[in-house]
Amino acid sequence: MEKDLQETIRNEDFLHKVVPVEEAITWIEDGMILGVSGFTLFGEPKLFLQKLAERGEQEDFKIDLYTGASMSESADGTMVENDLIRYRLPYQGNPILRKQINLGSVSYIDQHLSQTSETLRQGVIGPIDYAVIEATAITEDGLIIPSGSVGNSPIFIEHAENVIVEVNLNLPKEYEGLHDIYIPNAQGKRSPIPITDASDRIGDIGIRVDPDKVKGIIISNKNDSPSPLFEPNETTQIIANNLLTFLEEEVKSGRLTEELAPIQSGVGSVANAVLNGMKHSQFRNVVVASEVIQDGIFDLIEAGVVKFAYATAFSLSDKRVASLKSDLAKHCNKIMLRPQEISNHPEVIRRLGIIAFNTAIEADIYGNVNSTHINGTHMMNGIGGSGDFTRNSRISIFVTPSTAKDGRISTIVPFVSHVDHTNHDVDVIVTENGYVDMRGLAPREIAEQLIENCMHPQYREQAWSYFEEAKKKSGGNTPHILQKAHAWHLHFQKNGTMLLNK
Amino acid sequence: MEKDLQETIRNEDFLHKVVPVEEAITWIEDGMILGVSGFTLFGEPKLFLQKLAERGEQEDFKIDLYTGASMSESADGTMVENDLIRYRLPYQGNPILRKQINLGSVSYIDQHLSQTSETLRQGVIGPIDYAVIEATAITEDGLIIPSGSVGNSPIFIEHAENVIVEVNLNLPKEYEGLHDIYIPNAQGKRSPIPITDASDRIGDIGIRVDPDKVKGIIISNKNDSPSPLFEPNETTQIIANNLLTFLEEEVKSGRLTEELAPIQSGVGSVANAVLNGMKHSQFRNVVVASEVIQDGIFDLIEAGVVKFAYATAFSLSDKRVASLKSDLAKHCNKIMLRPQEISNHPEVIRRLGIIAFNTAIEADIYGNVNSTHINGTHMMNGIGGSGDFTRNSRISIFVTPSTAKDGRISTIVPFVSHVDHTNHDVDVIVTENGYVDMRGLAPREIAEQLIENCMHPQYREQAWSYFEEAKKKSGGNTPHILQKAHAWHLHFQKNGTMLLNK
Ligand SMILES: CC(C)(COP(=O)(O)OP(=O)(O)OC[C@H]1O[C@@H](n2cnc3c(N)ncnc32)[C@H](O)[C@@H]1OP(=O)(O)O)[C@@H](O)C(=O)NCCC(=O)NCCS
Ligand SMILES: CC(C)(COP(=O)(O)OP(=O)(O)OC[C@H]1O[C@@H](n2cnc3c(N)ncnc32)[C@H](O)[C@@H]1OP(=O)(O)O)[C@@H](O)C(=O)NCCC(=O)NCCS
Repeated sequence: MEKDLQETIRNEDFLHKVVPVEEAITWIEDGMILGVSGFTLFGEPKLFLQKLAERGEQEDFKIDLYTGASMSESADGTMVENDLIRYRLPYQGNPILRKQINLGSVSYIDQHLSQTSETLRQGVIGPIDYAVIEATAITEDGLIIPSGSVGNSPIFIEHAENVIVEVNLNLPKEYEGLHDIYIPNAQGKRSPIPITDASDRIGDIGIRVDPDKVKGIIISNKNDSPSPLFEPNETTQIIANNLLTFLEEEVKSGRLTEELAPIQSGVGSVANAVLNGMKHSQFRNVVVASEVIQDGIFDLIEAGVVKFAYATAFSLSDKRVASLKSDLAKHCNKIMLRPQEISNHPEVIRRLGIIAFNTAIEADIYGNVNSTHINGTHMMNGIGGSGDFTRNSRISIFVTPSTAKDGRISTIVPFVSHVDHTNHDVDVIVTENGYVDMRGLAPREIAEQLIENCMHPQYREQAWSYFEEAKKKSGGNTPHILQKAHAWHLHFQKNGTMLLNK
Repeated sequence: MEKDLQETIRNEDFLHKVVPVEEAITWIEDGMILGVSGFTLFGEPKLFLQKLAERGEQEDFKIDLYTGASMSESADGTMVENDLIRYRLPYQGNPILRKQINLGSVSYIDQHLSQTSETLRQGVIGPIDYAVIEATAITEDGLIIPSGSVGNSPIFIEHAENVIVEVNLNLPKEYEGLHDIYIPNAQGKRSPIPITDASDRIGDIGIRVDPDKVKGIIISNKNDSPSPLFEPNETTQIIANNLLTFLEEEVKSGRLTEELAPIQSGVGSVANAVLNGMKHSQFRNVVVASEVIQDGIFDLIEAGVVKFAYATAFSLSDKRVASLKSDLAKHCNKIMLRPQEISNHPEVIRRLGIIAFNTAIEADIYGNVNSTHINGTHMMNGIGGSGDFTRNSRISIFVTPSTAKDGRISTIVPFVSHVDHTNHDVDVIVTENGYVDMRGLAPREIAEQLIENCMHPQYREQAWSYFEEAKKKSGGNTPHILQKAHAWHLHFQKNGTMLLNK
């Protein structure tokens, strides 16, 4: 362990700062703001968070918790169970936390993932009392080498009064060299982000930190939590095929080549099926410029479909967690992790012309998309990076099964119960029934096509009836009857189905 | 005239292409797509459009009309009256056209103003049969010098089969040198846009055109249409003061300096009052990085408050149209016109850290904003650049009087009837009752403050009652009662007021 430690913490000053985790957690006081590494369950300071949460069992105190994105059960879950979180941002995906957010007992600030850094810089949120960051090594020069996510760690370190580094001895050493850390200056004093090709390396392999700010280093050997792996089912498979058909049509029309354009893919079951489907597609030398690297992207690299992939974090299943060490060794020059400010930056997304595909909770007949709130009220996860990507992408695609809850919910509705992405930002909607390319269409044309090509057949008649009545009685650019706009949702609340005749 | 012509069209090849407008309009065939210069009534090919519209009186044909933004009555209005327009994009503000859009007889594609260029490049809209562009000169090298707007002209010329230039002999020669024309390459083959300071000159003073594409040049001497000038009234004055108070508080808190950050201001009565109020403010050496340059910006330059201003177009009243020639001569090094793709580009807005203020039609208690659709159905104008700016700005401010129609409509409502800007993108809302700085607040906190500080007092009680009931009955991150979400709108439709007890 001693030797291992010296090989991992290769700077004397830092080596002297090692403290027991039990000591480090006592530094955290009631009311403090913590900026913590971690994104889609990867790269959390797992030991620190566990111990802090445990301290919460004995003691009454609250913190504001800033992270990269969603954290594991043992972080977000346990901390909320012990009533430790006052404010939480910018994204979460934990059932226990979700419940408290929806009860109003945790204040949740849902942000575009590229923007947390700006609000910190501007002094709108923060200042951060403690940045707590997982590292796989500290270099001779004192660079902090992150683990399986970069997320907001660089900006947290820059804007923290104090830094705690959790050095994890149990993670692949192959992480070193994988990261590309670039931090823009303040707005107005900033150069262009110099990425013109997805694989451009523009920064350092680790995060610079003012050594005086490093209050302590703790040692851990905890593994990251794997994400569930969604095997494609019949529906997700068909949705994936429809999406691939759309892309093939784009190639046929000459608007894309078989290299496509850099792709971003959301997480979840449909995204997985799409990546799976791409393995057997005509596409070659595809670049991935995304938020997360899932199992499927490793598969595509191995199948020779993807030639390079960057993201801000991994999100891997058990199987790929197990093979990560050798995967990283094999593919180190084909994979890069960037800060989420860069992976999700409008400047980069727009410049590269990314094709984005994300999942919708529901879409309305004019193409507005709800990604976050069930029934307009209950937060599911958060907008995450979906807004960063859809607004700025070359083609913004939303996928969703046409129904949820065994057909009792139509995911294409007259009027979404909450809007995250307006139809200006949604180009293509894909369900298992087909897809609609909304680009260049006016709202009434979109409605006709979405009803006919994406909606589940059993909901079409009642959709036509709404649309025809709205045109007749209200008219307008996006005809609606406000009395009935949410009738389907209300019918579901009352009768357990959106089918109005049931 | 002959001499004048030679001094204006300083290239022999182009001089030979002069044709009568009567000939040029015959080139336009049914079903063609026209990309036409013009933005907020400035820089239209006025003679061409008038004659084409007149041709429509005699003949049956339709075109798709792409512009920079809103066009004058004699363009959009007359063309629609003669039933000439099939598709229209990306923005309009004309009552006659608006009516036909809302009847569904013109297909309107409402786009973010920075994005029309991308959709053209991608081949999603277009190809353009004729680009028709107003010019104030053609240089020896064949550069086309635009007039009072740049808008989409460069990209229209680049993507048109044929180009018609309407050379206007009656506009100030001082336009030459004012423009900075920069066209990004295709996505994926593009360098960073090299603006790091608002006043950076990065392109040419005119638009390059392949001479072979120039089918003809027509000569005109028509003046631009002035915009109405809104004198501040009591309400807009108070709103402006509230906004300025917010900015002063930002300076006091150290988040801004008295130079502020580059500002974008929408058009209309409140925007005007704000610019007016800035004349007597503490702010100095302010930079304007906006979409349009209104009267008020000239005033601020003259008052020494603004040191430099760029936009993509002028939008001026009678008075400033009259003095434009001498104003341009005086301020030529303080003013610049850029393509709308650049003035509104996410990359530039985010890099410079612009403070954006725009007008809302309505906002809801959680801070979602409707900029476009009355009652969720009827298009007012379009989203314009408001999305480009609000999403990417450093501080995104929306202003609105707290009521419309003499108090019978509350502009702060439980649930907006249409969403253009989600609360992720709205930082501050200002009415005559006060302002709410939503940054760093969770939705329920936003609701409490918006009701108490922005809403008109006569609507507060019914708002509290909705909010309290929603928290109790539905809960959630953004508590709503879908049955009652649009009750205020419906009450207005039925009873002519949103006051539920009337
Ligand atoms: C939208 C999102 C929640 C979908 O995730 P998913 O895992 O593919 O969703 P599922 O289809 O499994 O649905 C999740 C749940 O919502 C329910 N649901 C789906 N659509 C629904 C609807 N319209 N109404 C009510 N419930 C719905 C499902 O039934 C399921 O319920 P369960 O958990 O009780 O089984 C998820 O993609 C997300 O959080 N997106 C926002 C962030 C984002 O897009 N990031 C991408 C950048 S990487
Ligand atoms: C939102 C917008 C329409 C407001 O414009 P404005 O001129 O300041 O608006 P006004 O307050 O004069 O209101 C315009 C009309 O809408 C009505 N109105 C305003 N709010 C209303 C509401 N909530 N419900 C119904 N009607 C409303 C007004 O009564 C007025 O009606 P009238 O024409 O019959 O008198 C305008 O700013 C716009 O088009 N914005 C979108 C584009 C944009 O923001 N561009 C900025 C980038 S430069």
